[in-house]
Amino acid sequence: MTEQNPPAAEGESAAAPVLNFKDLTTANITPNVHAINSSCADPRTKFLLDRLVAHLHDYARETRLTQGEWATAIKFLVEAGQISTDARQELILLSDILGLSVLVDGIDHPTPPGATEGTVLGPFHVDDGPQHASLGAQISADADGDSLLVVGTVADTAGNPIPDVEIDVWETDSKGFYDVQYKDRAPDAFDGRAVLRSDKDGKFWFKAIVPVPYPIPDDGPVGRLLKGTLKRHVWRPAHMHFMFKKSGWEPLTTALYVRGSPYETTDAVFGVKESLIVDVGQVSDREGFAEQYSVSADTKLLTYDFVLAGIEETAELRRKEAQKVADADSSVQVLDNGLLVQK
Amino acid sequence: MTEQNPPAAEGESAAAPVLNFKDLTTANITPNVHAINSSCADPRTKFLLDRLVAHLHDYARETRLTQGEWATAIKFLVEAGQISTDARQELILLSDILGLSVLVDGIDHPTPPGATEGTVLGPFHVDDGPQHASLGAQISADADGDSLLVVGTVADTAGNPIPDVEIDVWETDSKGFYDVQYKDRAPDAFDGRAVLRSDKDGKFWFKAIVPVPYPIPDDGPVGRLLKGTLKRHVWRPAHMHFMFKKSGWEPLTTALYVRGSPYETTDAVFGVKESLIVDVGQVSDREGFAEQYSVSADTKLLTYDFVLAGIEETAELRRKEAQKVADADSSVQVLDNGLLVQK
Repeated sequence: MTEQNPPAAEGESAAAPVLNFKDLTTANITPNVHAINSSCADPRTKFLLDRLVAHLHDYARETRLTQGEWATAIKFLVEAGQISTDARQELILLSDILGLSVLVDGIDHPTPPGATEGTVLGPFHVDDGPQHASLGAQISADADGDSLLVVGTVADTAGNPIPDVEIDVWETDSKGFYDVQYKDRAPDAFDGRAVLRSDKDGKFWFKAIVPVPYPIPDDGPVGRLLKGTLKRHVWRPAHMHFMFKKSGWEPLTTALYVRGSPYETTDAVFGVKESLIVDVGQVSDREGFAEQYSVSADTKLLTYDFVLAGIEETAELRRKEAQKVADADSSVQVLDNGLLVQK
Repeated sequence: MTEQNPPAAEGESAAAPVLNFKDLTTANITPNVHAINSSCADPRTKFLLDRLVAHLHDYARETRLTQGEWATAIKFLVEAGQISTDARQELILLSDILGLSVLVDGIDHPTPPGATEGTVLGPFHVDDGPQHASLGAQISADADGDSLLVVGTVADTAGNPIPDVEIDVWETDSKGFYDVQYKDRAPDAFDGRAVLRSDKDGKFWFKAIVPVPYPIPDDGPVGRLLKGTLKRHVWRPAHMHFMFKKSGWEPLTTALYVRGSPYETTDAVFGVKESLIVDVGQVSDREGFAEQYSVSADTKLLTYDFVLAGIEETAELRRKEAQKVADADSSVQVLDNGLLVQK
């Protein structure tokens, strides 16, 4: 009888418990699952699984989940998995609309003072986008879009420009769809995305279109949950995604939001930050820009100065935040790599 | 700025908050997601989603989940969804091996004294099994199996027989596979399963084979988690599944386990209960059985007296258990239907 079992092994060094997993009850199932999982060799993975089991079980007990409700959740997850493709990431979308994605981003990428804030990656980034576009490239082939010149800089928190940063940008077309959402598109027919590199002065520029608001894909289980069950809208305010990578610097996944766009304050995936909202102006606002970038003066203009945090600076912040959790929860400790595990 | 937002609406009657979902931080994201979800019309669904969001967020904060770990979890769920079919329920399997299934069964089907305990449904039940097999039917076509006569009774907690109960039984073949696991099988080629009805004395009997231990499907993400990550085995002890249904009675999903079967104490899905372990004897042990059931005297024999709980009796128990949760958590209340919701 498990009532006589020793408590669940906590931590790797605990002696292997005598396993006798019979007559498990709503009261004793959790430590017994921890015990049977205690052979997991990696302490971080063990910690993640133990806490996952504890939360799942507490959730079921707190809500007194019925089997019908459990079956509905299982069916939802199966359907979300089955509708997913490389271009349709329904589980990322689920995480986004529950605020989990922006939370994990905030946890994993704390922002040192002066550095640009990150935000949700979203489900439409592709790893194999068009590489090494030239500075000044036109990344959008959509003639219906409102022409936009984007001029940016990348610098460190002290203001020193950072050259040769890989800059991944992506946006929808004027209809609000990413290239990968078109089912009949050829695999390499990219539109509205490019991978650029900052020049020796940390500058980059390209031609695109003014971003538009768009609904997240709403013809699947997540859309039904949002619209049908939660009576929420499915819209994201107009934005353009950016991802910055360079060895020695904390990777930055962020986006710029067009000021005054509808849904600016009710983004379906909670990605908007005041510091990432930009005014879209016109090239004629800036002397010499039309000539310098070979665009007409009435082209719309978006400028932004991005600031990358050092990888060590961010790691230190992350360690500090992890230590705060450990200070408040005596059962956990921070490893040298900054990750939390069970003591 | 959300820092100035009112706290999350708790309960249906709260006024609609002023929504301004910008600059959400790891500290304030949770009440804001609750707030945006507060238009959900059904209080039970709202409660389930609010608690789900709270647990997901707490999990991420407590563990300081990294984006890489989050991406691994997303990938796992997508893969689990995509490998799932009617006959391969990877998400049910995941729930089973994390102890969630047996927990939800325990919560949703509390057992009044004297009634037969329930256990995990498992992923291999089919809703459209062979209907209305005759009492005495041979449900297994597997000549390699060890012939078994099953003789059971169904009664109420006072010992009164219950006639005309629908009894769904299913077991693997002698190789440890359910019929639905064979990819080349015709849709209606059932083996090792039947739906019977108890006779006027609450009795039922059928011919089958002695159950064998078998591994749960281990060629998918759940198998890799169990074997690779958790170093657990993937076996279930020998058992036969039973499901009982009759209007007015609490549906019972249970199984009988063969005493002494390997893995009796380490079932991969935590389903074994002492009260459900049976000795498999021989027909010759019981006088007259060979003649009465037209089987040879050396046929193996399994007998069991199942006891169904009344539907009201179980509902009352469920309500009591829900009230205990409400007594310990002042933010929740029990509805007339026995379900917990936010106050």
